[in-house]
Amino acid sequence: MLIYGKNTVFNRILTGKKIKKILVTKKINQELQKFIQQHNIKFPKNIIEICDKKKIDREFKEEVSHQSILAIIEPINLLSENVFLDKNFDSNSKPNILILDQITDPQNIGAIIRSAFAFNFEYIFVDKRHFPIKSAAIFKSSTGYIDNVKLYSYSNLNSLLDSLKKIDYWCVGLDGSAKQDILEVKRLENIALILGAEGSGIRSLVKKNCDLLVKIKMSPKAESLNVSNAAALIMHQIFSYD
Amino acid sequence: MLIYGKNTVFNRILTGKKIKKILVTKKINQELQKFIQQHNIKFPKNIIEICDKKKIDREFKEEVSHQSILAIIEPINLLSENVFLDKNFDSNSKPNILILDQITDPQNIGAIIRSAFAFNFEYIFVDKRHFPIKSAAIFKSSTGYIDNVKLYSYSNLNSLLDSLKKIDYWCVGLDGSAKQDILEVKRLENIALILGAEGSGIRSLVKKNCDLLVKIKMSPKAESLNVSNAAALIMHQIFSYD
Repeated sequence: MLIYGKNTVFNRILTGKKIKKILVTKKINQELQKFIQQHNIKFPKNIIEICDKKKIDREFKEEVSHQSILAIIEPINLLSENVFLDKNFDSNSKPNILILDQITDPQNIGAIIRSAFAFNFEYIFVDKRHFPIKSAAIFKSSTGYIDNVKLYSYSNLNSLLDSLKKIDYWCVGLDGSAKQDILEVKRLENIALILGAEGSGIRSLVKKNCDLLVKIKMSPKAESLNVSNAAALIMHQIFSYD
Repeated sequence: MLIYGKNTVFNRILTGKKIKKILVTKKINQELQKFIQQHNIKFPKNIIEICDKKKIDREFKEEVSHQSILAIIEPINLLSENVFLDKNFDSNSKPNILILDQITDPQNIGAIIRSAFAFNFEYIFVDKRHFPIKSAAIFKSSTGYIDNVKLYSYSNLNSLLDSLKKIDYWCVGLDGSAKQDILEVKRLENIALILGAEGSGIRSLVKKNCDLLVKIKMSPKAESLNVSNAAALIMHQIFSYD
């Protein structure tokens, strides 16, 4: 698959993940070479092809802001949920988890991943059937940080929540009609945060299976926030508590 | 100009702002009529044209998720900054202000407006030269709340900040290299929050003119957040302080 944009491709190089080929203009290649030097990265030169901007344009069906650089990579590999569940985390320092319930918009998913990385929610569970796995837009809107998080796929969300509860996770769902405010979750450890699709929210069976439902306090005139904005808010609350 | 999407058009109707014409499918018109009844709105029927989805598709150059409804309206009218500055607000209850410095992406601006409305930042200042005023995408990503906020245009941001300081506003800029955390602003009253473009941030002259620069605490591995995510975070902090 193709990924594009300076942040996205440069960050991919930094993570050391496999890249098959890079197409880049002469000008942006200078920035690329500087970046490689600065970070002291050993990077095979023969995968870089210098070309003109038009050749890069032609690789896309639609107009995208590719910033004169693209890379060809293998599609994302979603790990099985069991890979996570079989880990033996120290019970006092379990990582926070983010779970997406039927969120499908690549822009939103990318922005959520970007914030998740910033606020230490690096273990992210998605539904394979709804995750737009071949979308370059996810890479772009995550500014490449999708390469820094761990993505797991689940087949049944309620079973996943049951398994997480057994290993001492608090399953916390974000829900506009909840009674408690997100400020309440600050004290909790081992959080698995569940976010639902815009409009419909978390599915009702999943909601019932949550330990706690929380909402974001807002003006009574407003109905809801963009899901990536809501996600950033609650993850920041949990991150900044000390 | 055209606007589209159920939330966007329904909310426009609710605000009572002028609509020249609505194109809608039979099915969505049933929802529309229900909405009009529920809210007890007097709405002229002759501006509604029932048509098939293909006719609506043809109104757009690109594929957009119009949800089978569009409306034709007059373009947004930006108010002059003086209209705001000449108001005689009670000095103890000045409204919070949001100022956008060269943010141009319609998706981001729309999401920012949606959060601004939710967190009582209903007075928004933009640079006329950079604001994508004819973009239907702003309406869509604000879920129509652009019709509920007041939009002012400024010509010189530094002069605007000077004028705001004179009427007792704290000019607070969001800046990744700031020393203080956003938690610091919670105590302040009369806030004018300045947000810069992604990547470049607030311009350096403007930065110097701020009373206070604040940053969002995040993992040292991460560089920045999506600007609408960052905006939601700081506005929520200010809103939820009591």
